[in-house]
Amino acid sequence: MAALTVAQAEECILAHAGDFGTECLPLGQAAGRLLRQEVRAERDQPPYDRVMMDGIACRADAAFPLTCTGLQGAGQAPQSLPEGNTCIEIMTGAVLPHGADCVVPVERLKREGDQISLQPGSAPLEMGQFIHPRGADCRQGVVLLRPEQYLGGPALAVLAANGVSQVQVGRLPSVGIISTGDELVAVDAPVEAWQIRRSNDIGVQGLLAGWGVHEVQRSWVRDALAPLTAHLQAQLAAHDVLILSGGVSMGVFDHVPQALEQAGVKKVFHRVLQRPGGPVWFGIGPQGQRVFGLPGNPVSAMVCAARYVSVLLRAGQLGEAIRTVGGPSAPGLSELRLSAPVERLQNRTRFLPVQIRGAGEGVPCPVPTSGDFMTLAQTDGIVELPPGAEGNLQLPAGSPVRFYGW
Amino acid sequence: MAALTVAQAEECILAHAGDFGTECLPLGQAAGRLLRQEVRAERDQPPYDRVMMDGIACRADAAFPLTCTGLQGAGQAPQSLPEGNTCIEIMTGAVLPHGADCVVPVERLKREGDQISLQPGSAPLEMGQFIHPRGADCRQGVVLLRPEQYLGGPALAVLAANGVSQVQVGRLPSVGIISTGDELVAVDAPVEAWQIRRSNDIGVQGLLAGWGVHEVQRSWVRDALAPLTAHLQAQLAAHDVLILSGGVSMGVFDHVPQALEQAGVKKVFHRVLQRPGGPVWFGIGPQGQRVFGLPGNPVSAMVCAARYVSVLLRAGQLGEAIRTVGGPSAPGLSELRLSAPVERLQNRTRFLPVQIRGAGEGVPCPVPTSGDFMTLAQTDGIVELPPGAEGNLQLPAGSPVRFYGW
Repeated sequence: MAALTVAQAEECILAHAGDFGTECLPLGQAAGRLLRQEVRAERDQPPYDRVMMDGIACRADAAFPLTCTGLQGAGQAPQSLPEGNTCIEIMTGAVLPHGADCVVPVERLKREGDQISLQPGSAPLEMGQFIHPRGADCRQGVVLLRPEQYLGGPALAVLAANGVSQVQVGRLPSVGIISTGDELVAVDAPVEAWQIRRSNDIGVQGLLAGWGVHEVQRSWVRDALAPLTAHLQAQLAAHDVLILSGGVSMGVFDHVPQALEQAGVKKVFHRVLQRPGGPVWFGIGPQGQRVFGLPGNPVSAMVCAARYVSVLLRAGQLGEAIRTVGGPSAPGLSELRLSAPVERLQNRTRFLPVQIRGAGEGVPCPVPTSGDFMTLAQTDGIVELPPGAEGNLQLPAGSPVRFYGW
Repeated sequence: MAALTVAQAEECILAHAGDFGTECLPLGQAAGRLLRQEVRAERDQPPYDRVMMDGIACRADAAFPLTCTGLQGAGQAPQSLPEGNTCIEIMTGAVLPHGADCVVPVERLKREGDQISLQPGSAPLEMGQFIHPRGADCRQGVVLLRPEQYLGGPALAVLAANGVSQVQVGRLPSVGIISTGDELVAVDAPVEAWQIRRSNDIGVQGLLAGWGVHEVQRSWVRDALAPLTAHLQAQLAAHDVLILSGGVSMGVFDHVPQALEQAGVKKVFHRVLQRPGGPVWFGIGPQGQRVFGLPGNPVSAMVCAARYVSVLLRAGQLGEAIRTVGGPSAPGLSELRLSAPVERLQNRTRFLPVQIRGAGEGVPCPVPTSGDFMTLAQTDGIVELPPGAEGNLQLPAGSPVRFYGW
């Protein structure tokens, strides 16, 4: 199979993303999730003519001084304003007393016993002033939240205000991250001069955490067919998604594609027309598990995770019904403008690390080799530079480009 | 005390933010945290002359065909290339064999037994090709990460690669969120026509979750002095930070400021020259607890949490040593350009909900009243519009403005 374009690879992932399922969570555990139900207004909002200031409620045509006949606190059933030049003391958030049509803030009032007069120079009363009328914000039954809604603070407040204490959201997958490579040793192990510490696994775990995925198991296996196959089988049984790093290139010792096949994982694609990260692999396990094989180079691994794993995570949380091209789960910035001209590649997409500056400017931070990830920690993510035509590779400063954060 | 400007309020919070302390975490639990140590390169990076392709290692001046004398796998101690027209088969990630100065990728080779020749038309060999030389990315001892570094995926990978398996990070606070207001009922309770469901507490919890703070307790207390004071005392004993909503205005029933005083919380400020959210309150508890009193209006509560609580959380995680003005913990976008002209307020800051569009454009989404939070779920955060001068209130489209996400 020929290598895919980046857009084709994304389409493949969306077409095979499946559905991680739905779960019902109490609101206190639903932050950061994606909604999988429609939410309608439980009542008119506000549900009653709501007093907006502390002060008095009266009729706008009443003649001061007014006789104060009672106190209407927040949370109390509405009183009735007696006939005549009367008023009722009221509190912010209270229901407007029956018969009143106007609220005067306490700052504009003088009080002597039960006699209330206006401060000299106060504005004349207007009907409806400082009243937030029932239904002004929305009417009962109106759709307030749709499936695919990101549950940040404001959406959670909307759920609570409408009596939704348990909410249907997309389930998050359990993810196994598997490092391969015989040169790798553990972070806290003694290291020989020709060995390298495992770091891709924790890097990918950091990205997953940023997308709200915390059920993650990291493991390492050497790049030999039998142990790799056995390990893959065990990890497939334990997780919804596997992310391998290393072993997907062309080498004699790159056993990952063959081991995946032996473990029953069907290849969807291998190789994308991009740099870095060209050898990226994607397939489907025997029980529908989604499996990524990321290149072992640290920059390539981070780029492929930021660009492709993010797509799967969002799509799988939303299920078959919703298949829009999109990045990570959280809303926000998906585009930057280049702060400086950059060179595109011919016939393949270039991913370039950037820092965000000011209002949506991306400052290119090219890394000299795809092994050099020490400077990536100072960047905010990558921009995607589509292939350029021969003789027209330069993309000028100010060009809008897609952005994937990490 | 007169009301503060927004900048003065921020300075007050920074000056009184204190220090939530430091904790040492395994890397797998450190995602999203702020670093509180310096990290230097454990070794040169790469730590050895690293082979970048599968193929052979040889001398650039060797004459083909070459005799293949062995195989140098990744993770194996370096072999020595024998004199003469010889080569050693090598794997990506392996150490370069002693005596070799050049790598030829397998795609450019033909093999017959142990005799290796170049594919016709292959480029001539260059010394150093496909070798990532020891120390090319950085030298041992170089500072790679500084305190205040956000620990996303790339920074975690840098820590792992440099042997840091336990990392010093800023501790996260335990937060108590306290709703006041006699009109409030629980999300799943029966609700009378003149009552409102509690929603500010879960809205603020959603923001905290987005900033990585998960040790949160929500509670409700009626707005009466004695129970409020007792509840505050209990919550102060249990948490580092308290966030109250409601009861900070001027009403007879607004007992929050007095109850805070009785519970030993010293006021730092009350009221900021802003809309919405002007009555916001901030103080320090008897054991240094940080206490916010947010207005009860849902939009005001969200605005004040996004603008001020975020500042405290970042500063408290970094401790006394680092006191830079900054927003939430995570890096990213802190500025937008207005997509349309907006009206500033005279003598006070205006906070305006916005949607992010394209490369850093903020689309104004004004809410008709500060109680109307049903539409906030469709916005990405707020922009801060500094006070305008009389006759010059309009801020034109394209103006850069500070952005606070939610």
